[in-house]
Amino acid sequence: MPPHPDRLARARLLASPSLGPAVLRELERITGRPAGSAYAEEPDGPFLYVGDVLPEPLRTQRLLWFHSVNAGTDALLAAGPWPEGALLTRTVGRMGERIAQYTLAWVLAECQSVPEHTAQHSRSEWRRLPSELAAGQTAVVHGTGRIGSAVAGLLRACSVRTVGVGRTPRAVPPGFDRVVLAGSAEETAALADARWVVSALPLTDATERYFDGSRFGAMRGATFVNVGRGATVDMAALESALRGGTVRRAVLDVLPDEPAGPADHAWRMPRTVITSHSAGITADEDVAADFEACWEAVTGGRTPALAVDTRRGY
Amino acid sequence: MPPHPDRLARARLLASPSLGPAVLRELERITGRPAGSAYAEEPDGPFLYVGDVLPEPLRTQRLLWFHSVNAGTDALLAAGPWPEGALLTRTVGRMGERIAQYTLAWVLAECQSVPEHTAQHSRSEWRRLPSELAAGQTAVVHGTGRIGSAVAGLLRACSVRTVGVGRTPRAVPPGFDRVVLAGSAEETAALADARWVVSALPLTDATERYFDGSRFGAMRGATFVNVGRGATVDMAALESALRGGTVRRAVLDVLPDEPAGPADHAWRMPRTVITSHSAGITADEDVAADFEACWEAVTGGRTPALAVDTRRGY
Repeated sequence: MPPHPDRLARARLLASPSLGPAVLRELERITGRPAGSAYAEEPDGPFLYVGDVLPEPLRTQRLLWFHSVNAGTDALLAAGPWPEGALLTRTVGRMGERIAQYTLAWVLAECQSVPEHTAQHSRSEWRRLPSELAAGQTAVVHGTGRIGSAVAGLLRACSVRTVGVGRTPRAVPPGFDRVVLAGSAEETAALADARWVVSALPLTDATERYFDGSRFGAMRGATFVNVGRGATVDMAALESALRGGTVRRAVLDVLPDEPAGPADHAWRMPRTVITSHSAGITADEDVAADFEACWEAVTGGRTPALAVDTRRGY
Repeated sequence: MPPHPDRLARARLLASPSLGPAVLRELERITGRPAGSAYAEEPDGPFLYVGDVLPEPLRTQRLLWFHSVNAGTDALLAAGPWPEGALLTRTVGRMGERIAQYTLAWVLAECQSVPEHTAQHSRSEWRRLPSELAAGQTAVVHGTGRIGSAVAGLLRACSVRTVGVGRTPRAVPPGFDRVVLAGSAEETAALADARWVVSALPLTDATERYFDGSRFGAMRGATFVNVGRGATVDMAALESALRGGTVRRAVLDVLPDEPAGPADHAWRMPRTVITSHSAGITADEDVAADFEACWEAVTGGRTPALAVDTRRGY
């Protein structure tokens, strides 16, 4: 439910200290009020907050609406009970497009031996390397929301077959050839066929350690790409699958513990590359554009498309 | 003009010694006659030849038809005058698709810092790297035939704007947003706008050293990708443009002199990667499929779509 118009009209606008001046100006323009920042205490009246983390003193019933500058809201929701009735919206921006290009970059880099050619070049070595045509291969994409759908759609431009894995039966979203249910025999069969397994899962109670020994064991030489959340993966199970060969390679943008220090074991897993959570960076213009879309919905009395179901967690 | 049916019916089938047994069996099935190989002397009657190079003694009026197992026929045509009336066809196979995936792999590898992430990983270093969204950038593709068109079409899937450069005014081929004439002011303007300049040019008299100081000097920080022929590039001009910054990076699948030995200066050009002519490998099934399409056209009295205009050279 969007906040009551009267309360919203009176609400103060607060913003995280991390937001840059250009974004603040945009937020002021959109809401028609000045932006206060870095409140340590709860303000007198209702407020809306735009930022990354919610300061503890502001986790109160006076919070009307929190707009997250990130797409993932798991840390925000895990930090404490969500104030009842407070709207939570998020910034997706062009994240679907960004994560899709990241995924395709790593898929094609493997098909075209980009790291091997780079290494050969540094040795002044002329040697023709075979390439793999992605056309006709199968990619299984976990997560059939905006991001999974964007990833699948771009893979399909390279004539890759795309199978989505979702938690509830639904119409096939754009980008997918078909969708199977998580935990079904169809999922297991799809994992065995897959050349690529991509996770775009959010972190929720239902997805923690979703990628376990049984899922990795069902694969037959797929490369695993994680653009979702690190804690959806049982890292020990991934490592044994890499050693056993059911997983060919792993491209991990996210880890259960971030940032990884130099002593982290993840750096030493075989045939793995870790990319330091670089896949889905949101830009300032993404925050302003997505907040504006939410603002228009809310002031029109509608629930924004970017609203998070705070019980489900996404 | 396809060969006369009577002469084709009597023609012997000859094949290069380089062809594997699976391809030979396919050629025998398609033509309904046994394949002879490695002739050192001209056969008594008319013949058709499938292979990579045309042995000198077979460069005669009795050659009805040469089917090249490669897409590029420049070396074949440069080796001597083409026998009058002999049909020349070529294998394109899935080369358009392969070269398009190669090009996109290197474009996205640069946008997503694939080599830099790989290097960071090897140092166990967690550091977020910025990425570039290819969407909205401009790619100028030289060569608007099948290969250029496939390259442009795949770049467009990443929302890249695609400008083709062609030698003759024509309708805009699939994959391109627009086409400009080689040598026109529009070409110069497009090069200045381009984030990517891709060459899919064949080697002909008109394209030798086509990429010269003036074209490289018109660029404003584009990355240059050559999937065509090495001799279309003035390498000294490319090197100065790399040093001067009008060319940001170069990805060269082809060089004027191949293979490059370890002492070749090309390995030492700044911000360049050389990939050993690996982009457009034709597979056995490509040769058989394209020959069969040509055979069907020829026996139906039509000029095959894969026929080469031996005067123009492509």
